Amino acid sequence: MNFKISKTRFYEALQTAARAISPNSPVPALSGLLIQAEGSQLIITGSDADISIQLVLSNDTNKDLELSIMEEGSVVIDYRYLLEIVRKIESAEVNVEIIDGTLSRISAGKVEFKINGYRPEDYPPIDFKKPENQFEIKTSDFTEMIDETSFAANTKDTRLILTGVNLKSDGEHLICTATDSYRLARKILNINVPAFNVTVPAKSINSVRAVFTDPEAALNVCLDDKKVMFTDGSIVMVSKILDGSFPDTDRLIPSQFSYSLLINRRALISAVDISSFIKNDNMMIVRMQLNNAEDITISNKSQEIGEYHQELIAEKYEGEPLDISFSGSYVIEAARTMSEDNILIKFTGDMKPFIITNENGDDSLLQLVLPVRTYN
Amino acid sequence: MNFKISKTRFYEALQTAARAISPNSPVPALSGLLIQAEGSQLIITGSDADISIQLVLSNDTNKDLELSIMEEGSVVIDYRYLLEIVRKIESAEVNVEIIDGTLSRISAGKVEFKINGYRPEDYPPIDFKKPENQFEIKTSDFTEMIDETSFAANTKDTRLILTGVNLKSDGEHLICTATDSYRLARKILNINVPAFNVTVPAKSINSVRAVFTDPEAALNVCLDDKKVMFTDGSIVMVSKILDGSFPDTDRLIPSQFSYSLLINRRALISAVDISSFIKNDNMMIVRMQLNNAEDITISNKSQEIGEYHQELIAEKYEGEPLDISFSGSYVIEAARTMSEDNILIKFTGDMKPFIITNENGDDSLLQLVLPVRTYN
Repeated sequence: MNFKISKTRFYEALQTAARAISPNSPVPALSGLLIQAEGSQLIITGSDADISIQLVLSNDTNKDLELSIMEEGSVVIDYRYLLEIVRKIESAEVNVEIIDGTLSRISAGKVEFKINGYRPEDYPPIDFKKPENQFEIKTSDFTEMIDETSFAANTKDTRLILTGVNLKSDGEHLICTATDSYRLARKILNINVPAFNVTVPAKSINSVRAVFTDPEAALNVCLDDKKVMFTDGSIVMVSKILDGSFPDTDRLIPSQFSYSLLINRRALISAVDISSFIKNDNMMIVRMQLNNAEDITISNKSQEIGEYHQELIAEKYEGEPLDISFSGSYVIEAARTMSEDNILIKFTGDMKPFIITNENGDDSLLQLVLPVRTYN
Repeated sequence: MNFKISKTRFYEALQTAARAISPNSPVPALSGLLIQAEGSQLIITGSDADISIQLVLSNDTNKDLELSIMEEGSVVIDYRYLLEIVRKIESAEVNVEIIDGTLSRISAGKVEFKINGYRPEDYPPIDFKKPENQFEIKTSDFTEMIDETSFAANTKDTRLILTGVNLKSDGEHLICTATDSYRLARKILNINVPAFNVTVPAKSINSVRAVFTDPEAALNVCLDDKKVMFTDGSIVMVSKILDGSFPDTDRLIPSQFSYSLLINRRALISAVDISSFIKNDNMMIVRMQLNNAEDITISNKSQEIGEYHQELIAEKYEGEPLDISFSGSYVIEAARTMSEDNILIKFTGDMKPFIITNENGDDSLLQLVLPVRTYN
C-alpha cells in the first residue's frame, strides 16, 4: 500500500471513523483504524464491535481530496498515533506506505514516522451490507428527536433493553421512546415509513449528531432485526440492535388529568436548578406545593445542608391544591427539551406519573416523570 | 450578623477567597468561607492552612458594592453552597443573615435558603500581620517571572524543598529559581530589594496570577522566615514558607561551552512535540544529532510503537558533531518560556547539562536541562 492524500481531508476522515473506537477494546486490532487502498478509493473504518463507521474516499466524490494511490493494500494503525501524527504534521499532503509487513511509513516533507501496525486479517469482519427496510429523514429532524429523548434512557447496568432508544413505526408515524422506568421521553414524527420496531443502544444513536454534521442533508436509515445503518452517501455508520422487546410504554401514559399547570419554562428550571446542591442520598428531591396560580412553592431540604424555598407565580393553575415531590434533575432535563416560553404540566395525583408538554398541549413531544415519595 | 450586598461584587469576592480552599480539607471549617461583618466592613477569608486569602470590602474602597450592614457578627459557610447560591441568584442584591446559631439565611427576592454553617470559633486563627521585609513589583513582572520558572519545580513527594520556588535577593537582584534536579529554570530581575532567601510552595506562588488580576497594579510582597504575604491593597494572600535550605544551584550552571546551536524556536518545539506519543517507560526521550547547521536530526523511537525522525536546518551551529538525548517535554517547556524567534542552546558535552536562552544570549532568563543516557 502506498498513497498520498490531503492532510486536512485525511485528518477529518480519520477523526470521523475514530468516533466508533473505544479506547480500551479487548480486541487489540480494534484500537486501530483499518485503512484500505483499493482501485481509486481509500476506505477508512473504525469500530468497537457495537458501532462501526466507514468512509469511502475518492477524488470523484470528495472535494480537495488530492488522493493518489500508487499501490493497493491495507493495514490497521492505532488511531491515537495516526490522529496525533496527521494533526500535527505541518504539510498540505501526507504519504502513507507499508514498508515491511505491518510497519507503515507516514511522512510529509522532512518528517518521517515508521509505526508498527496490525495485520488487516486480525481486524474483525464488519458487515456493511444495507438492510432492506429503509427510510429517509432530514438529519436535523433525526438528531433533534434523539436529543429530546435519549437522555431518558437507563444509564445503569440493569434492564439492558432500557439502555437503548426505541425506534418504532406504524407505517405513518416514527415513534422514538426512551425510559429508565422512573421517567420517559417520547417523540412522534409524522413520516411515512415501513413498519418496524427496534431498540438501538443510546451510545450508538447519540453518535449520529457527531458523525453526520450537515443538518440539512438527507439521512438514510436502514434496519433489520440485527442492525441499523445510517448513511449520508459518503459516511456509513452501523450499530447493533439490542436483544429483547422494549416494554409497551403507551399504556403508562395517563390520558385523564385532575390538575394542570401552565408555567414559564425558564422560571421553573431556574427555581429547581438553584437548589441542586441540596441532596438526599445523592438525589435532588424537590417538593412542589400548588395552591393556585399565585401561590406555587418550590422547596428542597436536607438534614445536613439546610433548606430552600422559592415562591413562583404560574400563568394558570387548574385543580385542587396539590403537594408533590420529584427528582429535580428529571424535571429540569424534561423541561429543557421544550421549545416554547411556557410549558404545560398535567398531574393525576401526588403519587401518579405526570406529563410535561409544550404550552399548546401538543403531545408529539411528551415527557413523563414519576413522583418520589417523601416524608416531609 | 445581617447584611445586604451587590450580588456581582459579593460573588467576585467569594470566588477570589475560595481559591485558597482545598476541597477535601481535614479541618471541616476550612471547607467554609469565614464571613465577618465588622463596623462598615465585610471581611471574607478562605484558607487551606498553607495558603490564605482575605478580602476586606467596604463602600469606601469598593465600587458598586452597595454594602449595608444591619447587624455585626460572623459565620463560616461551605464555599460550594455559597458560591452556587450567589452565582445562580437572579437578583442585583443578596441578603445574608444569621438566624439561629450558625444557621444562615441567604435570600434575594422570593428565593430563600437556610444553610447550616460552622462556628467562627472552629475556624483556625490565621496571622495576617505584615512581615517587615518588603518590596513592590509590577504584578505582571512578578507573574511572568513565576510562569517562566515554577513549571520546573519538583511535582513528586520527594525532596520537599524542591517542590517550592526559591525567591532570593542580594540587594540588587531578585532571583527566582525552580528545579526538580533534572532541569532548572532561573529568572533574574534587576530590582532594589532588601536581601532575603525564601522558598515558597509552587502551588501558592502559582495562585498569584489568578488572585491578582490587574497586570498593571503594584504588588506588595512582604516576607520573613515563616511566611510570605502578597497584597494589592484590597486582597491579601499569605502563604507559608518551606522549611530547609534551597540548594545552591548557581554552581550547577556551566559557564564554558564547546557547542552552540542557534535555532528557530517554533521549529524545534514542533519537531519535538510531534513525536510526543512515542514514549519509553512513559518518558519521551528525544535524540538530537548535530553535525552542522544544515544537518540537524531529531529522532525518537520505541520498540513497541515505532520510530520517528525529522531533519532540521539551524540558523547557526558551532562545534564538533554532537549526539545528545534528552526529555522532550523538558526541552519543550523550557523553549516555550523564551520570547524571541530563535533560541540559543549551549552544550558542554553529551552527558553534561545544557542551557537554553534567548537568541541574544542574555541569561537573565535561563533554562538548564540534564541529558538522558540512552543505548541507541
